[in-house]
Amino acid sequence: MRYLITFSYDGTSFYGYQKQPKLRTVEGELESALKFISGGEDITIHSSGRTDRGVHAINQYAHFDLNKDITLYKLKCALNTHTSNDIYIKKVEIVDNLFHARYSVKKKTYIYKLNTNEYNPLERNYVFQYNKKLDINKMNTEIKNLIGKHDYSSFVNMEDKKESYIRTIYDAYINEDNGIITFTFIGDGFLKYQIRNMVGALIEVCTKNRSIKSILEAKDRTTFGKIAPPEGLYLLDVEY
Amino acid sequence: MRYLITFSYDGTSFYGYQKQPKLRTVEGELESALKFISGGEDITIHSSGRTDRGVHAINQYAHFDLNKDITLYKLKCALNTHTSNDIYIKKVEIVDNLFHARYSVKKKTYIYKLNTNEYNPLERNYVFQYNKKLDINKMNTEIKNLIGKHDYSSFVNMEDKKESYIRTIYDAYINEDNGIITFTFIGDGFLKYQIRNMVGALIEVCTKNRSIKSILEAKDRTTFGKIAPPEGLYLLDVEY
Repeated sequence: MRYLITFSYDGTSFYGYQKQPKLRTVEGELESALKFISGGEDITIHSSGRTDRGVHAINQYAHFDLNKDITLYKLKCALNTHTSNDIYIKKVEIVDNLFHARYSVKKKTYIYKLNTNEYNPLERNYVFQYNKKLDINKMNTEIKNLIGKHDYSSFVNMEDKKESYIRTIYDAYINEDNGIITFTFIGDGFLKYQIRNMVGALIEVCTKNRSIKSILEAKDRTTFGKIAPPEGLYLLDVEY
Repeated sequence: MRYLITFSYDGTSFYGYQKQPKLRTVEGELESALKFISGGEDITIHSSGRTDRGVHAINQYAHFDLNKDITLYKLKCALNTHTSNDIYIKKVEIVDNLFHARYSVKKKTYIYKLNTNEYNPLERNYVFQYNKKLDINKMNTEIKNLIGKHDYSSFVNMEDKKESYIRTIYDAYINEDNGIITFTFIGDGFLKYQIRNMVGALIEVCTKNRSIKSILEAKDRTTFGKIAPPEGLYLLDVEY
């Protein structure tokens, strides 16, 4: 039986999503729980994609195959019992055997939160604290140049070799609410560090008078400076 | 020179406010910073009052005496440099030598947050997760019986001996916003565990059909059950 789980996590205390020997990761913790629930069997989970260390998920998805006579409700409870309190399994459902949490993805939505108010220690792991002046209208015009089917190699780590850096961004926009600036990106998939680099570049649009078009067209990560830190980034949702 | 600082902290990773040998506390961390800033002198800080382990502060206040030629701005920066990122000093000002952060308090406001929505791992240290049914109108009627000058010994730990359990609550009320219930208490001062016990009692008003009047008049902590956990409690502000 193939199961799909919807879950959220606080990325602060994990060494990222992906399983790593001896380190506490989201994937590692879920697979340990499943091993316990299945009675000792090694069960591989397949998520919609990794998130980096410190990045959060509001709705992340993963599938796995499990042969056990258990109700969906009991499986949800068992997963929540055997994972720590910075992961929460929201939903467990049965899916077709052809469904794949990574390959069946249609759209992914990420948000990035930036706090321009006074530093708040209670929010320190959940927003990027940024106190220089930003022109939101300018960023909102520039961000539109990221929409479309493009080679996004300007926004990846140079060492991170891929067959293709072409992805499609369906929509991208910026909101401000009481000093919290939220960047939203909706696309068919994103490269490692792509969103944090796009946010970093959008900040330089204001602080260094850069243009997104020229950064994008350079296809070269070295044309701008800082990547935005992980604590502001959230995987908001995935559409299948 | 007597200084008053306004500061906030995330109580999650501290062993409470009050200084304790070998444990990381808010008071301990601030005094270490001041010792460094003063060049090795032991400086005692006096806060508006302690908060328990896991309890947060949005605006906490403390005074200390320091003989050093330093601007307010530089002292603020130095304090923030020498404390960790779960404390933030918002303001430093000079006060009269007769001012005392504890004895000069006129009013204190605490809030208590309860989440009745689905569990959110990102909020786990900042709200009390509560998923049984609560009658907010009933609690809002009952909470009014806590207002006034009363002996609040029903809401303290029995072992916590005090000369007087009489305090005055000026106002107390409950709001709900999208499944987050916020209790607000404004008073001249609160006993240890008083607010968390009052919240626990107000929950029992709904779940066990209790009356606040009878609990208050009993002057006996054993008449009701559970204390509410610390993570939902915030010192919101102090009036001098």
